Amino acid sequence: MPLDSIATSWVGTANDPERGFPLQWLPYCAFTPAAASGADGLAHPAAHLGVGIGAFILDLHGLRASGLLRDLPEEVQSACSAAQLNALMSCGPAAWSALRGRLFDLLKTAEPRSSRDTDRQRLVASLMTPMAQAVFHKAVCTENYTDFYASLHHATNVGRLFRPERPLLPNYAWLPIGYHGRASSLVLSGTAVRRPYGQYKIAAESAPVFQASARLDYEMEVAAYVGVENSLGERVRIEEATKHLFGLSLLNDWSARDIQSWEYQPLGPFLGKSFATSISPWVVPMEALAPYRTKLAPRAAADPAPMAYLAEPEEALSGFNITLEAYLSTARMREQAMAPVRLGRANLRDLYWSFAQMLTHHTSNGCNLRVGDILASGTVSGEQPGSQGSLLEMTRGGDDPLCLPTGERRAFLEDGDEVSLRGYGDCTGLPRVSLGECTGRILAAG
Amino acid sequence: MPLDSIATSWVGTANDPERGFPLQWLPYCAFTPAAASGADGLAHPAAHLGVGIGAFILDLHGLRASGLLRDLPEEVQSACSAAQLNALMSCGPAAWSALRGRLFDLLKTAEPRSSRDTDRQRLVASLMTPMAQAVFHKAVCTENYTDFYASLHHATNVGRLFRPERPLLPNYAWLPIGYHGRASSLVLSGTAVRRPYGQYKIAAESAPVFQASARLDYEMEVAAYVGVENSLGERVRIEEATKHLFGLSLLNDWSARDIQSWEYQPLGPFLGKSFATSISPWVVPMEALAPYRTKLAPRAAADPAPMAYLAEPEEALSGFNITLEAYLSTARMREQAMAPVRLGRANLRDLYWSFAQMLTHHTSNGCNLRVGDILASGTVSGEQPGSQGSLLEMTRGGDDPLCLPTGERRAFLEDGDEVSLRGYGDCTGLPRVSLGECTGRILAAG
Repeated sequence: MPLDSIATSWVGTANDPERGFPLQWLPYCAFTPAAASGADGLAHPAAHLGVGIGAFILDLHGLRASGLLRDLPEEVQSACSAAQLNALMSCGPAAWSALRGRLFDLLKTAEPRSSRDTDRQRLVASLMTPMAQAVFHKAVCTENYTDFYASLHHATNVGRLFRPERPLLPNYAWLPIGYHGRASSLVLSGTAVRRPYGQYKIAAESAPVFQASARLDYEMEVAAYVGVENSLGERVRIEEATKHLFGLSLLNDWSARDIQSWEYQPLGPFLGKSFATSISPWVVPMEALAPYRTKLAPRAAADPAPMAYLAEPEEALSGFNITLEAYLSTARMREQAMAPVRLGRANLRDLYWSFAQMLTHHTSNGCNLRVGDILASGTVSGEQPGSQGSLLEMTRGGDDPLCLPTGERRAFLEDGDEVSLRGYGDCTGLPRVSLGECTGRILAAG
Repeated sequence: MPLDSIATSWVGTANDPERGFPLQWLPYCAFTPAAASGADGLAHPAAHLGVGIGAFILDLHGLRASGLLRDLPEEVQSACSAAQLNALMSCGPAAWSALRGRLFDLLKTAEPRSSRDTDRQRLVASLMTPMAQAVFHKAVCTENYTDFYASLHHATNVGRLFRPERPLLPNYAWLPIGYHGRASSLVLSGTAVRRPYGQYKIAAESAPVFQASARLDYEMEVAAYVGVENSLGERVRIEEATKHLFGLSLLNDWSARDIQSWEYQPLGPFLGKSFATSISPWVVPMEALAPYRTKLAPRAAADPAPMAYLAEPEEALSGFNITLEAYLSTARMREQAMAPVRLGRANLRDLYWSFAQMLTHHTSNGCNLRVGDILASGTVSGEQPGSQGSLLEMTRGGDDPLCLPTGERRAFLEDGDEVSLRGYGDCTGLPRVSLGECTGRILAAG
């Protein structure tokens, strides 16, 4: 169901063109009112599912209890009363679309109003919690987390540091490189990130040390959630791949570069990553993202075309015109009431491989993807200065520290530093839409 | 509670010294009687937990319903009625020990017998299913699967093929190398393994191909199950590490060598592994393994001692004297009623890193391990010919194919080939104990 792009909502803040949560967006979250509980960055059994509209969260649990979803299949209504989105995801794309259509109808401005409309609007309004008062929880139970490496610019920037003579390995242009990440250490935005201890080798020394990481970094990424499973042995064709995706969130793949560079050969990243991976609370459904779909940036003429199993039609809109930004705030900046500084800004459409290609490649060996699994983009970087998605790239491995307005310098993250990822979409004729924020503050090793 | 090592069971087959399931062993499984369901290699909601004794499985669900566990805490009794072991694991080591002690008492030969004993024994006997009639299911829900590389001989053999000039990388002797595996594609022994398609590059060609893997291999491994969690940010000290482990199973980390070698740089194994990983149905509790604990083989004099956080006391018995064997049966061998041929035999005590060291290293960055998570050893190989745990090693990358008694040759696995891992322990004065089998047959790509 296409949602009317010029419709407005009776929720006034939804029509604020800068706020990012208009009627056409309607991302999902899991939340409790602040009074109910403290945030722990994990799933919460008493959480309700909610949908973001303007400055509010509409409680899906309450909506179902009020009978306002009774036209939807029982399975969908029941999924709206769950504490996480997985049951709704399992209902499939037709159900996702039906629920979204229903929410749109309940929230759009209806003229002229009948008294029944007014009563209904009053009931829906009673199910709203201000976003500022909510405590968010993990909206999705993720059993398997895969991290790709789909930004050519990121792979080139990083490759140049580790392998100056050949930044890109020969396989890069042929397949979406990825690795199995650690699902247990996925935490919600807002969860503090403790600086990890680890074993690493300082270049000048002959033996490694075991101590707190001195090269702690962030990675600006986007997570795609699997909504439709494939069974073990079942490959998903490229034409079908997007239909398996439920939606997108922001993801920060925190990285301890010193641990990573000592451990990663020959089996890849391990403890340099698995101390924490942060995800944003909002899950934006693919249907809401339709106006932001675009072609991926064209490949260089010298690069091979994708092989048949990864080949999308020329006109496929498999990229997303979504701007990503990372901001840094240090303890001193906060003491001095300074706004966070922007570290980098990139666009998701600049990926070399689309999420559809990642999903098809992932299942090309018959690997089964489960509802709620994450396929992450890998760090999203652009080609230009100021568009890198990690400090490793920005400071060239720490050699060129950033100068902050406080006079502080940063090669890598210090204790007390807070990194916040933001994502938004701008499309002619539509209000700005927001993916929200993905934030984490570094705690001292302990 | 130490279990009397000379006690026998009233279950006659338990006292057969070759069968491998004596009174002192009592491994766990999840099963349904064959009539109830077909095997699907996954969890089964109607599965019962069972304990292996002689040729039988004692039904824990039935034992609880009969009131024979009523002296145990309610939490433990309830865990015995679950379809998987995770709830029992969550009860902690004291509960594991109490249940095991109770099972021992119920199954041991008691002399002289009272009529109450006879009645009880009749009741317990009524709760037995012959192993040969049971259908097994996954006994543990595993959310996170980590695969290590803890056999020095395996790492050396493989490293020699990929990097002849330096088979072992400089980090090998310093830390237990590992990577995050894929949990969704863990399947139970007996599940057929479909030959994966994948992208790989044939050396003489300039471009890769996408086709069925031509270099399909097995890896003979042991899985250790986490039974006690640590929370995110909490490091587990080496002295405490073994207490976090619940038990061991066999694991076959099927590997498509062509896919793996093309994809693995720089982020490690991915689709070369995630099409299937087989685990054996029996989970042997750590307490049962106590008599088989032993020192790890000593390190070479030139190797560094483990760093402080990984250093076990000189006298630590952190290895396991468990023999591992892999067997191959081809379709033609089965047609000709030939017994499977042994491919390799190694011993788990020959690992370079202990499971305790793997667990402590894994949590050294604060990574949280969850109940049911698997830490796998990586391929277990010995130093001698005939002790390698994979075809890659045995055939030197396929260059020296094996000759089978049928006249067939094998560089890698062919369709119809069945690989079976076996594990057993022999200890002076004790009957042989068995870890059971971990079996899988290769289906044609499809």
